[in-house]
Amino acid sequence: MKKYLYPDFLVKIINEKLNIYIKDYKTSPEILRKAISYSLKNGGKRFRPVLCLAVAGSLGCRYEDVAPTACAIELIHTYSLIHDDLPSIDNDDLRRGKPTCHKIFGEDIAILAGDALFAEAFNIILKYQQSESEKIIEALAEIGQASGALGMVAGQTVDVFYTGKEITRRKLMCMHKNKTGKLIIAAVRCGAILCNASQGHMNKFTRYAENIGMAFQITDDILDVVSSSEDIGKTAGKDSLQNKNTFPSMFGMEKSRKIAEKKVSEAINIVKSMEINSEWLIKIANFLLLRKS
Amino acid sequence: MKKYLYPDFLVKIINEKLNIYIKDYKTSPEILRKAISYSLKNGGKRFRPVLCLAVAGSLGCRYEDVAPTACAIELIHTYSLIHDDLPSIDNDDLRRGKPTCHKIFGEDIAILAGDALFAEAFNIILKYQQSESEKIIEALAEIGQASGALGMVAGQTVDVFYTGKEITRRKLMCMHKNKTGKLIIAAVRCGAILCNASQGHMNKFTRYAENIGMAFQITDDILDVVSSSEDIGKTAGKDSLQNKNTFPSMFGMEKSRKIAEKKVSEAINIVKSMEINSEWLIKIANFLLLRKS
Repeated sequence: MKKYLYPDFLVKIINEKLNIYIKDYKTSPEILRKAISYSLKNGGKRFRPVLCLAVAGSLGCRYEDVAPTACAIELIHTYSLIHDDLPSIDNDDLRRGKPTCHKIFGEDIAILAGDALFAEAFNIILKYQQSESEKIIEALAEIGQASGALGMVAGQTVDVFYTGKEITRRKLMCMHKNKTGKLIIAAVRCGAILCNASQGHMNKFTRYAENIGMAFQITDDILDVVSSSEDIGKTAGKDSLQNKNTFPSMFGMEKSRKIAEKKVSEAINIVKSMEINSEWLIKIANFLLLRKS
Repeated sequence: MKKYLYPDFLVKIINEKLNIYIKDYKTSPEILRKAISYSLKNGGKRFRPVLCLAVAGSLGCRYEDVAPTACAIELIHTYSLIHDDLPSIDNDDLRRGKPTCHKIFGEDIAILAGDALFAEAFNIILKYQQSESEKIIEALAEIGQASGALGMVAGQTVDVFYTGKEITRRKLMCMHKNKTGKLIIAAVRCGAILCNASQGHMNKFTRYAENIGMAFQITDDILDVVSSSEDIGKTAGKDSLQNKNTFPSMFGMEKSRKIAEKKVSEAINIVKSMEINSEWLIKIANFLLLRKS
């Protein structure tokens, strides 16, 4: 059933483009290249770039027109997973059903592979994104802000710092918004920016993305509790073992599910209210409530 | 004597600007902010941004016109030092005479502080660099290429991978060019790009920077052998202890010094042949042969 809910044809486009872009560093040291490829070709859902492409599609743009930026965001996501999994951070051995980067290539190479992916994300946009310079700069700024000291890294810092400690609901929300939400929001907004969306559309896309981002993190937390490691492809039950602050740990399972449902429904209402082709944006939102991994 | 040789007035500009830019993430998690400030305010020579400013000055530009990009390069350099010092990479306890970032803030926060600095480097340029969009994109591409899988990270990977192993002279040169040279070259080229240097000037500045970059790395290797930890502010003699591939280990001290002198003299001849105000570019080159840290 899943294939009717999730835009696998967009995943295919992303994977094809990624295969092209990574050829740019084929003269890079072999072990670095292998670590990057291993992490990047790890069979992810490509959730963020798919969202970026879906937004472009909803506005009548060609998917190819935003593909470099979409792929760059996937590189940043991949780098963040490699660093998050490191022994000194989340110390995770399993990711998408396979040993994590540092388990295969060592901690040093994993750190460097993450660093390289971050740089190459910017390089892909700077080399391949065919848009007006102003639009490229706007997209880069979205991505830079989403990944930096007020975005993804801030969220991860709070996560690390408060693991095993009491956290307020407001801080939990803020942590999740920074850690996961902002890059998802950037993916959506970059799709819209590069397709010259109006300010009105930008605002609505942003609200759509905020809801989607929160729902994504909540369902992620829920899956960690209810699924087997085999299903989710990473060590299940790890959040609880590590005393992580999660939605289920704060609100309980039932209420967490309700919040996720509400966020998805809000996201859907927003795109339904826009004069765009919202079909896939709705399907992607609904997919979050049904996903098993 | 040093103050007549090194442009301390440019260091001052850089430090002032850095103090302004880092206020942008004053709402970032406290521990992350502290780790970033600690590493960034560690009293470095600001060699790369100083070069960028000196190139701008040589072309008659105002220093302020390139300061954001110059500072961004310092952020990238700082991030690379934090990651290089990590236990799983160079495992260094001392940097510029003070405990390394991970010794103070822990390995997890050090990794995250490096990650944040990298993102914030791009953010500074995107927010503060007042140039034509095309020029900004050109500068970003220089920096992205210099830091990525074919630049700094490639050099660091080769360094890690070949530590304790035999390496060819060609590979040693290539490693140093990637690890240290390319960011130095980017600093020089960005100064020139943002000041609309002609293609002829660009080529000469690039050759100046290539020579400077190599001389910088050779003198760095030499200092590691001949200086005390107190003088160089990091653990002296570490290269040899760790079986690192260095210029002295491959060519011996005397020949290494000769190569450095030759590179400096070539760099000076290049800028002397240009119709620019080359005073500080020459002084910076000469400084490399006299520096003690």
